[in-house]
Amino acid sequence: MTTLSAALGQAILDRAAGLARHSDMEDGLTCAYLTPAHRATQAQLAQWMEEAGMRVRIDAIGNVVGRYEADPAVAEPRVLLTGSHFDTVRNGGRYDGRLGILLPIAVAGALHASGRRLPYHLDVAAFAEEEGLRFKTSFLGSSVLAGRFDPALLERRDADGITLRQALADSGLPGGGDPEALRAAAIDPQSLLGYIEVHIEQGPVLLHQGLPLGVVTQIAGNSRFLVNVEGQAGHAGTTPMNLRRDAAAAAAEMVLLVERRCRQAPTLVGTVGQLHVPNGSGNVIPGACQFTMDIRAGEDRLRDAAVADILAGIEEIAQRRGVKIQLDRVTPVANTPCARRLMDQLAAALKKRGLPVHELPSGAGHDAMMMHRITDVAMLFVRCGNGGISHNPLETITAEDAQLACEVFADFLKDFSA
Amino acid sequence: MTTLSAALGQAILDRAAGLARHSDMEDGLTCAYLTPAHRATQAQLAQWMEEAGMRVRIDAIGNVVGRYEADPAVAEPRVLLTGSHFDTVRNGGRYDGRLGILLPIAVAGALHASGRRLPYHLDVAAFAEEEGLRFKTSFLGSSVLAGRFDPALLERRDADGITLRQALADSGLPGGGDPEALRAAAIDPQSLLGYIEVHIEQGPVLLHQGLPLGVVTQIAGNSRFLVNVEGQAGHAGTTPMNLRRDAAAAAAEMVLLVERRCRQAPTLVGTVGQLHVPNGSGNVIPGACQFTMDIRAGEDRLRDAAVADILAGIEEIAQRRGVKIQLDRVTPVANTPCARRLMDQLAAALKKRGLPVHELPSGAGHDAMMMHRITDVAMLFVRCGNGGISHNPLETITAEDAQLACEVFADFLKDFSA
Repeated sequence: MTTLSAALGQAILDRAAGLARHSDMEDGLTCAYLTPAHRATQAQLAQWMEEAGMRVRIDAIGNVVGRYEADPAVAEPRVLLTGSHFDTVRNGGRYDGRLGILLPIAVAGALHASGRRLPYHLDVAAFAEEEGLRFKTSFLGSSVLAGRFDPALLERRDADGITLRQALADSGLPGGGDPEALRAAAIDPQSLLGYIEVHIEQGPVLLHQGLPLGVVTQIAGNSRFLVNVEGQAGHAGTTPMNLRRDAAAAAAEMVLLVERRCRQAPTLVGTVGQLHVPNGSGNVIPGACQFTMDIRAGEDRLRDAAVADILAGIEEIAQRRGVKIQLDRVTPVANTPCARRLMDQLAAALKKRGLPVHELPSGAGHDAMMMHRITDVAMLFVRCGNGGISHNPLETITAEDAQLACEVFADFLKDFSA
Repeated sequence: MTTLSAALGQAILDRAAGLARHSDMEDGLTCAYLTPAHRATQAQLAQWMEEAGMRVRIDAIGNVVGRYEADPAVAEPRVLLTGSHFDTVRNGGRYDGRLGILLPIAVAGALHASGRRLPYHLDVAAFAEEEGLRFKTSFLGSSVLAGRFDPALLERRDADGITLRQALADSGLPGGGDPEALRAAAIDPQSLLGYIEVHIEQGPVLLHQGLPLGVVTQIAGNSRFLVNVEGQAGHAGTTPMNLRRDAAAAAAEMVLLVERRCRQAPTLVGTVGQLHVPNGSGNVIPGACQFTMDIRAGEDRLRDAAVADILAGIEEIAQRRGVKIQLDRVTPVANTPCARRLMDQLAAALKKRGLPVHELPSGAGHDAMMMHRITDVAMLFVRCGNGGISHNPLETITAEDAQLACEVFADFLKDFSA
């Protein structure tokens, strides 16, 4: 059993608090891709990695990858990859993503302090972008490391009209947005032993079970849509109700349809997270309304059935109300299974600490989904406080749970076998 | 029956087209208060009034008031006032307001050409401002004529930061923005026989009834609200449907409640014109949602009953869904009743031309609301083409309808009795 300082859990919480001071907003944490707060966070992570005895590189998309090098006695060591993202949603939590960076740094630092080496390189990837806040496309960081970056995304624009290409050119990152540099930043899949991600659960399951840690079985995929409803603008005072083609009223009906349909199975969830009437005016009947839909389930077939019903329902509402629908479908993501061989090693580490092994699916998406395209993945969930709230300033974990997670992770690393 | 040239209707359409060439924008009609286009429009109207045999004055707010003087044989003649506004909304229609100026000028011109005088002064007021486009406050023109101008408005600023006071000082208008001059521009209520406004309907009611003209019963006031729904933000993938307090789903239910309740009476209308999730993200359950409500009806009690039901329904939805409501109520505006004695005389003029008398409320606000504060008012609505669309370049009327409106208006004037 690896013996770690009992202060490691609290140190992780302190570092998460320190990182949260770099924010795009005044009274909360927003760390959008390539903002000044994002660059400051990146620099701080690189520094902590170096202090933990790692060799650090920042790649063409802005990922910070620290390597805790293998025991020099091992010939041609392979790589065990761990990590998560350091960008956030708007006004998000300080552990989402970051826990999966700070915890491995802390454990590597402890190994480094005791002069202990592993029989493989431990790479800690701090992914620059996962949430999709700025360019409305997620997994920018992990897709580059996995060699799955789509160069068409370089033309995507943020809310100010700046393309990803321009943002990268202005960033000072190596390659300056050159597609070739982004391609070259990929890790060699042959070198990998697997990918393991530590993450706050972002839900209430472990909390309700009274358990500090859990082993993830699979990560829910999702079906995402951007829906544009086009109705007919008109004077709010002079157009009788029965002659209206109100885009917002039609959208409202669709929002409730998503909700109603997704209540029909326990693991099924559907969310309209963005909703607005462009250039709305209090005395004008909405001529347009836009919203997003995000639908997930514990099983692909459950989700697919819900999506089919919802799309048919939207069509019916549009026909009945005389509005037009333009539907942009983001490529759906299938559920990602975790590798049994890695899950079993996590379970062994939990048992070593006398902890019960609770397996649970992840409703949230994670960088592990992208890494699964090139290697086996597993995830260790840490209990989320405050009722399981996440993507919110109230997101929290305890120092005790962080400490336990460090100990389990350290044992997992020490006992790891390919 | 007054005999008018059959070409009068077309002449009005031609003049509306001519006026629309003075615009603040390239490819459409915007005539904001005191812009060069506005001054050109004002000058053109003054010229047409003079050609129609009227004595013209331009007052301190920029209203053009033409007087077709009474028969000199009448001792101490009183004044029948008519008119409407010549400013427009952004990219508006060419008949909104202007029809109620051009039509009386055309009829006065016809009387003048035939040497016919009325037993009262006919004053045609071309109000300089009603839409509120530039200074976000409406009825500037009619409030000055009605002696109800609020001098505090002089400090209001347009989008460029120019105060109304400054704009008036730079305008060359008499008084140069002096509050005393604005007060002195008021008409003497004692002199008035009433106020009659001709206006395009701006809605589809007459069009659907197959009727060219209608008599307005009252002008709808409104009840306006800004509603803030506060729920609980959360992760779209990890929060089960039954544990959500989704502000957007709650708002969607409220939007449909407004729609459903306002379908229960023919003249009742309810509009959610603005609707949005602040800082919404596709993968975050909305923690907040804001929307506006604008509720109007042909009768105050109808509107009040609907508002009471809607507010109770919103409360019920909020309770059931565990969301909080913050409701800002804009001071409600009561309905403006038209005077039966004037409506009856309009009806008589319609019957004289063999037209059915269709009475309808006005959902839109009009200068008549302001003039009602000092005299009895009535309105004649002219059928709106293109499905009843207004505040839009597609707004239109036919020459035949304009001709009929001229004839009815001329008969009304000829037969008018105090």
